[in-house]
Amino acid sequence: MATIERTRSAERIERDIETLAGSDYTLSDESIRRYAYTDVYRRTLDYFVRELEALGFEVHEDPLGTLVARNRPPGEPVFGVGSHCDSNRNGGKYDGTMGVVTALEVCRLNEELGLGLPLQLISFLEEEGSGFGQMLLGSRIIAQRVTEEELKESFRAIDDGRSFWEHAEAAGYEPARWRECSHVLDDLTGWIEMHIEQARVLQDTGKRIGIVNAIAGYVHADVVVHGRGDHAGATPMDLRLDPTLPLAESIVELERLALAAGKGTVGTVGEIDVEPGIINAIASRVRFSLDVRGPDDEAYRGVAREIAAFAQAAAERRGMRAEHSQRQALPATPMDPRIVEALERAAEATGEPFTTMHSGAAHDTMCVADRVPTAMVFVPCTDGISHHPAEDADSEDAALAAEIILNAIRSLQ
Amino acid sequence: MATIERTRSAERIERDIETLAGSDYTLSDESIRRYAYTDVYRRTLDYFVRELEALGFEVHEDPLGTLVARNRPPGEPVFGVGSHCDSNRNGGKYDGTMGVVTALEVCRLNEELGLGLPLQLISFLEEEGSGFGQMLLGSRIIAQRVTEEELKESFRAIDDGRSFWEHAEAAGYEPARWRECSHVLDDLTGWIEMHIEQARVLQDTGKRIGIVNAIAGYVHADVVVHGRGDHAGATPMDLRLDPTLPLAESIVELERLALAAGKGTVGTVGEIDVEPGIINAIASRVRFSLDVRGPDDEAYRGVAREIAAFAQAAAERRGMRAEHSQRQALPATPMDPRIVEALERAAEATGEPFTTMHSGAAHDTMCVADRVPTAMVFVPCTDGISHHPAEDADSEDAALAAEIILNAIRSLQ
Repeated sequence: MATIERTRSAERIERDIETLAGSDYTLSDESIRRYAYTDVYRRTLDYFVRELEALGFEVHEDPLGTLVARNRPPGEPVFGVGSHCDSNRNGGKYDGTMGVVTALEVCRLNEELGLGLPLQLISFLEEEGSGFGQMLLGSRIIAQRVTEEELKESFRAIDDGRSFWEHAEAAGYEPARWRECSHVLDDLTGWIEMHIEQARVLQDTGKRIGIVNAIAGYVHADVVVHGRGDHAGATPMDLRLDPTLPLAESIVELERLALAAGKGTVGTVGEIDVEPGIINAIASRVRFSLDVRGPDDEAYRGVAREIAAFAQAAAERRGMRAEHSQRQALPATPMDPRIVEALERAAEATGEPFTTMHSGAAHDTMCVADRVPTAMVFVPCTDGISHHPAEDADSEDAALAAEIILNAIRSLQ
Repeated sequence: MATIERTRSAERIERDIETLAGSDYTLSDESIRRYAYTDVYRRTLDYFVRELEALGFEVHEDPLGTLVARNRPPGEPVFGVGSHCDSNRNGGKYDGTMGVVTALEVCRLNEELGLGLPLQLISFLEEEGSGFGQMLLGSRIIAQRVTEEELKESFRAIDDGRSFWEHAEAAGYEPARWRECSHVLDDLTGWIEMHIEQARVLQDTGKRIGIVNAIAGYVHADVVVHGRGDHAGATPMDLRLDPTLPLAESIVELERLALAAGKGTVGTVGEIDVEPGIINAIASRVRFSLDVRGPDDEAYRGVAREIAAFAQAAAERRGMRAEHSQRQALPATPMDPRIVEALERAAEATGEPFTTMHSGAAHDTMCVADRVPTAMVFVPCTDGISHHPAEDADSEDAALAAEIILNAIRSLQ
């Protein structure tokens, strides 16, 4: 195992992070706000281009703006590292960006230590959906999980409603060549993405590193309960069709179902809309969202089915009607056991506390895993806060991650 | 008992209602929208002035615009009838207006039949709060349940933010004389307000008339549950502080408490705000409203106390904190037994189905009852729909109410 000067790596990572949190790199004074085809995003890519070219990497962008940098000519096998450097609209400094910065540090260490590993850094486009409301957009394009119609018509900028296609052209890219984006993954023998955990598992269990062995799949759905909007004072309890009751019963049941299913299954009601939403009126209609996830497809999909049936039965039991509609679903993505094991061995060698875990959040790596053996490395973020200016993570942990990733890749050669 | 030609009364009531639903009398094309100091409200008062002067009534307005019409000189005892003719912002034709129109019909019948009853019609100002966000504003001023500071400063127009005081002055009234408004009730020996029920009890039990023996009191409150806004995918079930769960448990418990308390007690959660309110985030904070009412102060206040304690305990049991704050409370208003009995006898004499019931909704009559023996008469409204353009009620029922009110007043002389 190569040992690195972690303090120096941490300082470089810290410097990169702080630079990219400066006013040149965000549209907002109060948070990091950075998304595709903005000046601040362009400057962020340029920062990485300069740093990578200084290491002797050949840098290019795919036809839509995914940054690709490699220390071997095209056609030769390389090991992929990276993440994304766009942010949530009200984002912090670390989500995505720390992953690209740590990948850059892996590239630096590889050169400094003369390890000669064949590497390719990727910074994916539009992971957060802040520009066009589409999560994992760049990596989905690379995985060809989009249609030309979506790129031309459906996917539209949150800011001005113009299509993704138009924005890409205006920024000097070639959306008509979008199918060629798939070549980004052509030469990869493996892929490791480092990311902040965005939850509290590492912090609360005292670990510095999480080796991700699966990314949770999910079902996103909505339930609408149709009640009857009567006067809250004048309508006796036994003449009501109050849709907040099936809502309430469903929230309690979802928790029960998720706990009973185990295997990392989680369920959340994050959105609740009540109409008309006034203190002295029984609601006429309630809509609520369902987010059900887990690394075990059978387990979380069972919960998603059962809660949908429960909500409908709860409404019917009270003489109401509930409509369930699925928004989106994505299967769980298992990581490659060989890469996971290499990361575990490299983590063990550091003597630092780590754990193997699944990722509850979605990541670009889900779109890489179709074609390339992949894994991820998490570092703790304070109190699990993410997608918020208060997001905080430790450069020392990122330096530790860089060492582990470097050694894992080395052991896989 | 005087019997009346109900069909003719129904036709007159229908004509008045339809006239006052015309475009001269509402600010909206899609609903009745009418509130104090607007042109459409002025024209509505003028309609009643003309009709009442045609009956020989002396008509005036109090210093803020409450309409008072009487067939006896000031100082002589009179029996009061009336309601309000402002509307909800998205209102229908019947709420309030049908009560004033029916009171007008009582005055007409009194003259036509030569009964010689001493009557005073009142049309209260701003019952709905559509102008200044203050329910029962006119009758609360008459009952002196407001402060000069509120009229001058706190109570502001929804439309332009200017104070009630300024608007009253601009409309030619004399807010500085607001204390004199109390004289509106000086000569009343009794008061009966007719109103649409705004609920389904009469319709669903096949009654045409409801004699109101009490108006429910209420407690309006808010509960805020402070959770922790973590990632919905990445946060295991056992590391969550999800405030939607105490919300859900409280909704279910409120129904149980209200049913257990009986005595007409009702409880409603009509407002739910979830922050941040996105599908893939556990809520950081939930606010919900509590509306607890009933004709029995002890019963509904007990429920209001218990649900507040329950919500706090439910939050604490899960490691969260809930804050309960009362917005407003008003005790129940018992109606005068002698007037209720007179109405019941008059209703019996018609042979039509009626019931004695409490009002779950608040009415101006609550502010009259402090000083004057009062009761109310309800007529059914279709499917309980009120505060909505679809509001519908039957002029035949209103004519029946007019007959009952007329005979009740007669029996009380």
